[in-house]
Amino acid sequence: MDNLYTQHSAVTRGQREELLEQKGKVLWFTGLSGSGKSTLADALNNKLYKEGRLTYILDGDNIRQGLNKDLSFSNSDRTENIRRISEVAKLMADSGVIVLTAFISPFVEDRKNAREIIGTENFIEVFVNTPLEVCEGRDVKGLYKKARKGEIPSFTGITSPYEEPINPEIEVKTQDKTIDDSTNLIFGHLKKLIDK
Amino acid sequence: MDNLYTQHSAVTRGQREELLEQKGKVLWFTGLSGSGKSTLADALNNKLYKEGRLTYILDGDNIRQGLNKDLSFSNSDRTENIRRISEVAKLMADSGVIVLTAFISPFVEDRKNAREIIGTENFIEVFVNTPLEVCEGRDVKGLYKKARKGEIPSFTGITSPYEEPINPEIEVKTQDKTIDDSTNLIFGHLKKLIDK
Repeated sequence: MDNLYTQHSAVTRGQREELLEQKGKVLWFTGLSGSGKSTLADALNNKLYKEGRLTYILDGDNIRQGLNKDLSFSNSDRTENIRRISEVAKLMADSGVIVLTAFISPFVEDRKNAREIIGTENFIEVFVNTPLEVCEGRDVKGLYKKARKGEIPSFTGITSPYEEPINPEIEVKTQDKTIDDSTNLIFGHLKKLIDK
Repeated sequence: MDNLYTQHSAVTRGQREELLEQKGKVLWFTGLSGSGKSTLADALNNKLYKEGRLTYILDGDNIRQGLNKDLSFSNSDRTENIRRISEVAKLMADSGVIVLTAFISPFVEDRKNAREIIGTENFIEVFVNTPLEVCEGRDVKGLYKKARKGEIPSFTGITSPYEEPINPEIEVKTQDKTIDDSTNLIFGHLKKLIDK
């Protein structure tokens, strides 16, 4: 094995994107608990799949029980949570996958950091803008009720701030829209960005 | 947006694999520094790409400077390094990608943990079995020389053990083989595992 260290030309991101006929991107959904991030990510995911796109959702279900199971909800661990998600999303987008992340990610600074890690050309911030009253009115998981009783420390929107995106690539006001409307709105923005 | 919380059927791993016409897997290369892990991972990666497979390499270059840049080379941080790599590889394989990891990963316990995280049905341990003398003789990066001088603490093979895989899915004795031979050997084992 004399030539073991001969330089092999590596497969490039461009070649993987060619193979997939799409560009790797990260759609970063942000918004309050109950705003509809996961629902919209799921709906968009289905739509993209039907169009033959390779996508993947990163959310609490597959991150908090796996990669980030050692992290608490302290401020520093929340920042580390977002940092690691950003690094994973970056790697997956580099592999050619269209990544959809669905995390509250309430702090401007953390999302700015995510954008820097992922690269702004690959980062699409999707602000799921649903008023607190609407989210709290839904309260599907009963979390707002608990938070109001003081049973959940640092609950975003109640005892911890949600810092709205200043200049998101996409903003969806879900309040007066159907899921299909919102999904189509995001898809419309996305289409030109992912075509290879 | 009344039906916001209507359950959407999620896109499954099987559907992604259908789209890619391949099964997501993790090829876990393990072996001494200089054994040829990265070279073989690169060569296999090229071969798989030519066959139209979507693959991705996780190695020191994209992990130690990104996701795991907060980790040192202490024993506990090495374990955490392997744990995080395993979690990322698991997610990527779940997206349908064939992942190739190239890390020394010297400890049986850590690799066992990797196998458990990734799932044994998706985990292919590739033991790049190159004798220490050969690796040290190559010493492309000059690391063995430094380690012998005591300039690198806990250097695998010199001042820290390398625990050989007990029952790896694939073993390559690189010593008397060309890169092509070794690559073909691994590819032969792999082909039946990745066909969808």
